[in-house]
Amino acid sequence: MNNAKIAEILTRVRAQKPLLHHITNFVVMNDTANLTLHIGGLPVMAHAKEEMEEMTAIANCLILNPGTLDEEWVHSMNIAGKKANALGIPIVLDPVGAGATKYRTKVNTDFLQNLRIAALRGNQGEIAALAGAGGKVRGVESVEDVTGIESAAMRMAEKYGAVVAITGKRDIIASRDSLYFVDNGHERMASITGTGCMSTTMVGAFIAVEKDFALASAAALACFGLAGEIAARQAEGPASFRVALLDAVANLEPEMVLRNARVTKMK
Amino acid sequence: MNNAKIAEILTRVRAQKPLLHHITNFVVMNDTANLTLHIGGLPVMAHAKEEMEEMTAIANCLILNPGTLDEEWVHSMNIAGKKANALGIPIVLDPVGAGATKYRTKVNTDFLQNLRIAALRGNQGEIAALAGAGGKVRGVESVEDVTGIESAAMRMAEKYGAVVAITGKRDIIASRDSLYFVDNGHERMASITGTGCMSTTMVGAFIAVEKDFALASAAALACFGLAGEIAARQAEGPASFRVALLDAVANLEPEMVLRNARVTKMK
Amino acid sequence: MNNAKIAEILTRVRAQKPLLHHITNFVVMNDTANLTLHIGGLPVMAHAKEEMEEMTAIANCLILNPGTLDEEWVHSMNIAGKKANALGIPIVLDPVGAGATKYRTKVNTDFLQNLRIAALRGNQGEIAALAGAGGKVRGVESVEDVTGIESAAMRMAEKYGAVVAITGKRDIIASRDSLYFVDNGHERMASITGTGCMSTTMVGAFIAVEKDFALASAAALACFGLAGEIAARQAEGPASFRVALLDAVANLEPEMVLRNARVTKMK
Repeated sequence: MNNAKIAEILTRVRAQKPLLHHITNFVVMNDTANLTLHIGGLPVMAHAKEEMEEMTAIANCLILNPGTLDEEWVHSMNIAGKKANALGIPIVLDPVGAGATKYRTKVNTDFLQNLRIAALRGNQGEIAALAGAGGKVRGVESVEDVTGIESAAMRMAEKYGAVVAITGKRDIIASRDSLYFVDNGHERMASITGTGCMSTTMVGAFIAVEKDFALASAAALACFGLAGEIAARQAEGPASFRVALLDAVANLEPEMVLRNARVTKMK
Repeated sequence: MNNAKIAEILTRVRAQKPLLHHITNFVVMNDTANLTLHIGGLPVMAHAKEEMEEMTAIANCLILNPGTLDEEWVHSMNIAGKKANALGIPIVLDPVGAGATKYRTKVNTDFLQNLRIAALRGNQGEIAALAGAGGKVRGVESVEDVTGIESAAMRMAEKYGAVVAITGKRDIIASRDSLYFVDNGHERMASITGTGCMSTTMVGAFIAVEKDFALASAAALACFGLAGEIAARQAEGPASFRVALLDAVANLEPEMVLRNARVTKMK
Repeated sequence: MNNAKIAEILTRVRAQKPLLHHITNFVVMNDTANLTLHIGGLPVMAHAKEEMEEMTAIANCLILNPGTLDEEWVHSMNIAGKKANALGIPIVLDPVGAGATKYRTKVNTDFLQNLRIAALRGNQGEIAALAGAGGKVRGVESVEDVTGIESAAMRMAEKYGAVVAITGKRDIIASRDSLYFVDNGHERMASITGTGCMSTTMVGAFIAVEKDFALASAAALACFGLAGEIAARQAEGPASFRVALLDAVANLEPEMVLRNARVTKMK
């Protein structure tokens, strides 16, 4: 597809500096806060009931990531989610570990049913679990390719009116009207924790500035995958890869996207 | 001013290894724990009500950073703060995101009114919000220069008897009797999350060993800014800058401080 | 001793990809999740009461690390611990800061008395505190060598039927039947926060695949120490050392272990 559009959205993220309100897990909080700054946004991590509505109200996107969920945090996510819906602020949901326990599957299903989610970003196992399409999740990792994952994504998109973005070797982005494949990325990205959560933050930053959420999600994942490719060239292991990945996101130029984004619009 | 004094305080931090009890936010906990070790102190991160008084009692400084606050954590901060006051252990407060929500403004104002704070370290927006002097905070970022921030700092220092340390392009350190400017630092420091929180930890380490809290704060910020300058020379992006910054803090020699600290005593 | 055995266990970790359920502290969660991946396992960090039993049931090892403990988290650790015991899933306990406050000493003693712990991994001060053998803990750091620490370890191992693994300049691993010394490692490992917690995760990964828990613990600490030695050669400070350490764990080859592990079986 037209990479100029992707480059243009990236430029808009940098210009508008969207504020991304994260209610997210303890493991990746530092990474996703830094990533938000590096791609051009402003992060805020906040979960207190007392400030949920007010904090959400000033955000340009709400990111719900129940990776280290408990009752209190889920409660705050619901308060924030309802406020975001009331104000038309888009929500990105990362259903970390859905399928691993009944509790995780239920919490994420409830979010999908009770909130209007702009984009659901997960791995194959998580999305398959939520779609009732099988898939195997060990802890928070998807451990095998899921047959028919594309049609599961399209069914989920239809059912909830949300963009469904599945990251993996090939990223799949489905909405009611469209289907994209993104072939940027590098296998090193699976060697560190948090790349899934980071890709969710990327989607949040792009959705905050572009109303075509499917296009925004595809653009976000192309940019992140491209940063992964650049980082892989200079890494000597997973930890130096992580440093290089964050640097590459910050140093990503629209021109690189023009030349190297690999997004296919199928529908 | 006399850089020998600053170098001497740094040497004292390394010799005395102050224990810094942090009750701090989830985003930066790893960074501030590491920074504490690198500058020469010992970190402990603890928040359980059951051990608050006992843990605070063995510390040389208490650092309160309600960046990811909630009711329970604020409660623990109050217990620790009262104990610190009772024992004469200095408290450094980092009012993360004050001004962004009413709850954050209130929690931090309550700390200032109910506890004896040795040093308040924030950005321009946060301090202006607490001083009722305007300032704009988006999430946890100060987004514009505040007119009259210097006099706001001096008024706050007068009102609460605390050192008020504002970090930015030029750091401003005000107390009832003194005013310092620190011109060390590098713009890269704004490209990662947590440099504000880290500067608070630096202030805590220096205040733990030097009774002139304004001088200690100025010295801490000069050392941290200097580490930032050194790190910026070798960084290829924000994430490699962060690694280099922490290395530079650990490798900072009194001699470098002697030559390169840029602190001006105005009063 | 025979390094081939150590290399073989490492190979088994990589082949079996054990799932390590961590209930751990906020400071190191990212490091220990990454380390789990790098050594060849799968991490999951989860603490909600609602999913504790189910999450523990799918794990190959449970890691309890009450470094930033509070009542709720201790409660979840107990639920998970009982489930692990019921199913024969080994538990590794890291008694962070035991000895620093009465609460920490009590919580960890309760775990040892109420749960069947496969391995207890701590520093000299923490183990000495739990053994009632003196030792000085400031915050979470052991600040001096403890006289008679070896016999304290052996007494603890006898009393609780657990492997007691003490990391330090020389690592000591004691069980009812055996005693190992490990002389791999580098002083740089003490310059960053979390190496203790990381060594606990290493022990967990090895215990998950090898029923001789003392041998598994010695092998784990030899591999981690060796990674520290490799990393120290290229680090310019503690933060670049941390990156290099995680890279070195991921890049560790059985062949390096064959040549360079320094484990002595004393009994």
